[in-house]
Amino acid sequence: MFSILNIIELLGTIAFAISGAFSAMQKRLDAFGVLVIAFITAIGGGTIRDILIGYTPVSWMRNLHGPIVITITVVAAIIFKKYIKSFKVTLFLFDALGLGLFTLIGLQKGLDAGLRPVVCIILGTITGSFGGVLRDILLNNIPLIFRKEIYATACLIGGSAYFILLSFMNADWAKIVAISLVCSLRILAVRYDLRLPVL
Amino acid sequence: MFSILNIIELLGTIAFAISGAFSAMQKRLDAFGVLVIAFITAIGGGTIRDILIGYTPVSWMRNLHGPIVITITVVAAIIFKKYIKSFKVTLFLFDALGLGLFTLIGLQKGLDAGLRPVVCIILGTITGSFGGVLRDILLNNIPLIFRKEIYATACLIGGSAYFILLSFMNADWAKIVAISLVCSLRILAVRYDLRLPVL
Amino acid sequence: MFSILNIIELLGTIAFAISGAFSAMQKRLDAFGVLVIAFITAIGGGTIRDILIGYTPVSWMRNLHGPIVITITVVAAIIFKKYIKSFKVTLFLFDALGLGLFTLIGLQKGLDAGLRPVVCIILGTITGSFGGVLRDILLNNIPLIFRKEIYATACLIGGSAYFILLSFMNADWAKIVAISLVCSLRILAVRYDLRLPVL
Repeated sequence: MFSILNIIELLGTIAFAISGAFSAMQKRLDAFGVLVIAFITAIGGGTIRDILIGYTPVSWMRNLHGPIVITITVVAAIIFKKYIKSFKVTLFLFDALGLGLFTLIGLQKGLDAGLRPVVCIILGTITGSFGGVLRDILLNNIPLIFRKEIYATACLIGGSAYFILLSFMNADWAKIVAISLVCSLRILAVRYDLRLPVL
Repeated sequence: MFSILNIIELLGTIAFAISGAFSAMQKRLDAFGVLVIAFITAIGGGTIRDILIGYTPVSWMRNLHGPIVITITVVAAIIFKKYIKSFKVTLFLFDALGLGLFTLIGLQKGLDAGLRPVVCIILGTITGSFGGVLRDILLNNIPLIFRKEIYATACLIGGSAYFILLSFMNADWAKIVAISLVCSLRILAVRYDLRLPVL
Repeated sequence: MFSILNIIELLGTIAFAISGAFSAMQKRLDAFGVLVIAFITAIGGGTIRDILIGYTPVSWMRNLHGPIVITITVVAAIIFKKYIKSFKVTLFLFDALGLGLFTLIGLQKGLDAGLRPVVCIILGTITGSFGGVLRDILLNNIPLIFRKEIYATACLIGGSAYFILLSFMNADWAKIVAISLVCSLRILAVRYDLRLPVL
């Protein structure tokens, strides 16, 4: 189970880094700017989570896998940028998978810190979606999270489902089902253009 | 004394949450976005303060009163939004009261951490006014705090007054007078359109 | 050595505070806004670094030299603003010196916390350049760091050079050379309008 989680987290990190790199290239930032935005998109949510919990030095300082993967990804994204655009659907699926995985990783970190379920769900949502919020703030956009198809809402629903599922199965299975739920909700929302009502 | 402070903090949280919810609705965010912006407006200042002091997990993770009150407030604000606009003056008064109270709560947390008076005054000001700064950054506005009638300046003056007042009365009374001072300054500033000079 | 570092840090703080104050005056903020932006420009990078490491209460709360120097600087900047504009070159040189010094101070804090070299280089870069990022976010600009001549890139190169130089000289000399390298790169970049390629 552990190594599968790691592989999916890796794919999620790659997808988030690519999404950050492409947003930065669209705004015509230089190579350093593209790297920084990709980095912040991929590790920003987890960093905010670690700071709020008080888990410092934050995760990417303890374990360099993230920064290394992100750097390689950005170099590859810059070199292959023409081709990657045609991987749009693949990328979107990775992003959805990363969203689900990051949500449950964040939720688990909250549990490890002895926090209440509702706080853990919020931490999962922050881990999954706030890297994108930081990206949008730095690029001077209103965060997309507040505008587009169901995104953070999928994290909230998946995180809540996890605690309900614990009544029916063990924690590992509950995580797998909750991750699948977040991914499916996100994919269905984009496929059928589902949005929350604007008030 | 403690329970009166709690009640006023509650009213301040409600006022800040409503102010965040209305700003978000004006920008036509969806229901989730409105909830997040209201949440960040109400707990953002205290969260930044807790992170700067190193008081983690941050307050709203330890005590769920805030998140619960904010959620109920947002649901009510969405349902009753037509009516609440006519409560404009009431809301403004709550906001001013919240500003005063949050300033002194932040200042007290600094004292509890053994920090110097001037740092405590800054922490009080951050607690009172930086939730609104985060709200404005997320909604892609220049923070209103830097543009409108005396706001954070009232926190600075009230916080400074607290330490002067300690020479004349006990800490509880000094707090009550300082809170009243922040509220009065804010109300007078809006009533008479007082602003600091633009440079 | 220690007192020279302190003096240069002082000059760097002054230069960053002036740069923040002028940016804020250009956006026609009031006196309080100018003070806050100057403060955040000068201590923002170090504050983010301290939070990421978990070194709290953050530095400017423990040692008031920074806040005092910044306040005096802002008052002076407001009074003498006509004259300071003609110091433009002097200011730019202080800013470049501050950038180099802050980079090595940040790197050293990472070493003190037992972090890996690459993390220390990132912390140095954050210390040198993220005060300006916060300034730009608060003033609702796309961070200049992502747009102008080599800036944070100079921090990255200087920080990396430090670890290479350790093979050839002792730590104090390596720091002095690395600081000079950051300053020189920054000055040459502006003098010859060097930029990283836009992607």
